[in-house]
Amino acid sequence: MDADTARLVERRQRTFGPTSVLFYETPMHVVSASGVWMTTADGQRYLDVYNNVPSVGHCHPRVVEAIARQAGQLNTHTRYLYDIIHTYAERLLETFPAGLDKVTFTCTGSESNDLAMRVATAATGKRGFIVTDNAYHGNTAAVTDVSPSSMPGKPLPPHVRAVRAPDVYHAPTDDLAGRFAAEVQDAIDSLEADGIGVAGLLVDTIFSSDGIYADPAPFLGPAVAAVHAAGGLFIADEVQPGFGRTGDAMWGFMRHQVTPDIVTLGKPMGNGFPMGGVVSRTDLLEAFTKSVGYFNTFGGNPVAAAAGLAVLNVIQDEGLVAHAADAGQYLRERLRALAGNGHPEIGDVRGAGLYVGVEFVRDPLTREPDPDLARRAINGLHKKRVLIGAAGRHGNVLKIRPPLVFSRENADQLVQSLEEVLSI
Amino acid sequence: MDADTARLVERRQRTFGPTSVLFYETPMHVVSASGVWMTTADGQRYLDVYNNVPSVGHCHPRVVEAIARQAGQLNTHTRYLYDIIHTYAERLLETFPAGLDKVTFTCTGSESNDLAMRVATAATGKRGFIVTDNAYHGNTAAVTDVSPSSMPGKPLPPHVRAVRAPDVYHAPTDDLAGRFAAEVQDAIDSLEADGIGVAGLLVDTIFSSDGIYADPAPFLGPAVAAVHAAGGLFIADEVQPGFGRTGDAMWGFMRHQVTPDIVTLGKPMGNGFPMGGVVSRTDLLEAFTKSVGYFNTFGGNPVAAAAGLAVLNVIQDEGLVAHAADAGQYLRERLRALAGNGHPEIGDVRGAGLYVGVEFVRDPLTREPDPDLARRAINGLHKKRVLIGAAGRHGNVLKIRPPLVFSRENADQLVQSLEEVLSI
Repeated sequence: MDADTARLVERRQRTFGPTSVLFYETPMHVVSASGVWMTTADGQRYLDVYNNVPSVGHCHPRVVEAIARQAGQLNTHTRYLYDIIHTYAERLLETFPAGLDKVTFTCTGSESNDLAMRVATAATGKRGFIVTDNAYHGNTAAVTDVSPSSMPGKPLPPHVRAVRAPDVYHAPTDDLAGRFAAEVQDAIDSLEADGIGVAGLLVDTIFSSDGIYADPAPFLGPAVAAVHAAGGLFIADEVQPGFGRTGDAMWGFMRHQVTPDIVTLGKPMGNGFPMGGVVSRTDLLEAFTKSVGYFNTFGGNPVAAAAGLAVLNVIQDEGLVAHAADAGQYLRERLRALAGNGHPEIGDVRGAGLYVGVEFVRDPLTREPDPDLARRAINGLHKKRVLIGAAGRHGNVLKIRPPLVFSRENADQLVQSLEEVLSI
Repeated sequence: MDADTARLVERRQRTFGPTSVLFYETPMHVVSASGVWMTTADGQRYLDVYNNVPSVGHCHPRVVEAIARQAGQLNTHTRYLYDIIHTYAERLLETFPAGLDKVTFTCTGSESNDLAMRVATAATGKRGFIVTDNAYHGNTAAVTDVSPSSMPGKPLPPHVRAVRAPDVYHAPTDDLAGRFAAEVQDAIDSLEADGIGVAGLLVDTIFSSDGIYADPAPFLGPAVAAVHAAGGLFIADEVQPGFGRTGDAMWGFMRHQVTPDIVTLGKPMGNGFPMGGVVSRTDLLEAFTKSVGYFNTFGGNPVAAAAGLAVLNVIQDEGLVAHAADAGQYLRERLRALAGNGHPEIGDVRGAGLYVGVEFVRDPLTREPDPDLARRAINGLHKKRVLIGAAGRHGNVLKIRPPLVFSRENADQLVQSLEEVLSI
């Protein structure tokens, strides 16, 4: 670590203390970013294949200009009327299926899931939630309760049940939809046996923290039907897959040919401007507002609306959904070619659009997870100026989710660098 | 309502639905704001004595410039190192007493209180919280549990106890500190009798939603001592009084000569940029991070740091703390003069700095609250182009908390307009 970085780490320890968690064996001091590139204080440029928040590219000029313009004109809250929030709300809701026609703005994905759970509880009169067993849905007290990945090794709260992630690599099946639905039904039965009942099935539709499970889609339909039959709701957490990342549509749930009751939004919504949202229906919101109501001071402010509107415009004008499909497909093909070319430690390459997982195993036959190799690859790629992270309960799956402007050329650089790291 | 406003209300109903709550009998369509002024679509200018979020003035050019510059250069998260967040953290922590030397960044005051409660629970091993009986601390599930004002008429959850607000107008006493501490002790005893114990006393140090209770300060010390003796923590919610508003210091708790264990920040921190924070100590954070850890995607991002740093600079360079003391003192004197000059319906004028309450009563002897007059005054002032709201469990207290650049001349306009409204 150079003196500059060491000094920053020391200042950080002094002001942040125990909550400080830094990436990489040698933390990096960043000073600027643009598109898929991040630049450090020593002038080095890194290819960013990690950050899904700056989804239309770091510091996209149209988003920056929209924020600057609106911040200088009006920044207030939704107890007054202003035009831009409704222009944005209308544009956003146009991307959803019929019936999902109301939006409530928040500031983060965590606030969105916290609110969605309260809406589901009020609407169903039940308290139980079903999630996957390494899910992450956010950081509030209520949302941490439904985030098993935040409490490894600890028992779940009484109102939460976890089902296995839809993993056909470690547990092959010809009927993933049926198996997933059967496990959800067991969870429903268990919640009902305890007198809790099911308020909702809450899943990230690309199963990011579980290890990225996209296929064979559709596989969520029967599980959703089981939850509906038990009087519960389906909450699609689109904080990670949403806004075009999966390449086939704006929303990850669309790959599964189901219509959620509630959809939660966050991370890429404002390309880094703090904003989130809950999309749902009038009947559900009515049950909730009768019991308590909701107002969010910063939620839906005009600057957030300007940022969000610019993001929607850039996704459309730059054709980023189709681009994510193409670049993601190309990347997966190149990664599979690398695996087949003398790299059996790459056990699986999977994903949709520009959300791609590369699973490392110690042995292609036993498929035993290899988190050590993932750690070495992450730090080795960092030295080669490629930024990447890991997912999955074992931390052995490379998590590839770059800004959506990531190109085939960027994919070539990533695969080339990975090949070099794996050949050391 | 004109056609333009009616059309916006209709669009709003269609996109927001039941969660839509608008101010005033005739909602207002705002298009721009600057300093203490908000401008509507019909070109009218309103004096804003309501909004405490744009605390250094609506669209302050230094804050806008800082946001625009940083948004164009780098906007990422705290798992990388960058300079500005630590410059900001250091500047912020300098304003706190010794011992309060760690900050954790969030995006909203709600997230701050949610996190503070989790830190207190982890550090004390207890679950109970004590709040005032019309407190509002935010909108997450956990924080709504400790916000009696969000659940009027409903029973509190088993782990929450409410004490009376420190109100010497309706319940005079020569020993407010002793009375408040005795009620807190009763709440502690009740939580302990139920086997819950006290994790924390959580109060807004200006008691905003309770009806604004500032004096006779100091009065919190004995209550805090009682909570400490029972193994609990004192959490000062500075979302409303903080950042100089009370006129005597940066933080409302300083008027009470106590040092909190945890301080929560929000609303004015970024002059409208969504950001919040929790200030506490290493020993408390260690207990919490051992149990679960915390990461907030948008919390502490470089743009938030730039906005927060600009706010601190403006408060200092424009002398806004001393200004709040002077303008607030002048305003209270003028309001008291108005009350004494044939307006016995103004039962009380109170507050600190630029957080001022004007309590309306039906009769100065019985001090019976008059929420109808407060409603008439709010809508009457709106017609006279002055924006104001109400607080208190009866909604009969005018809540005056303008941007801190509010001047004596602005105070004159407010009092003149109020006199006209009360004389109709």
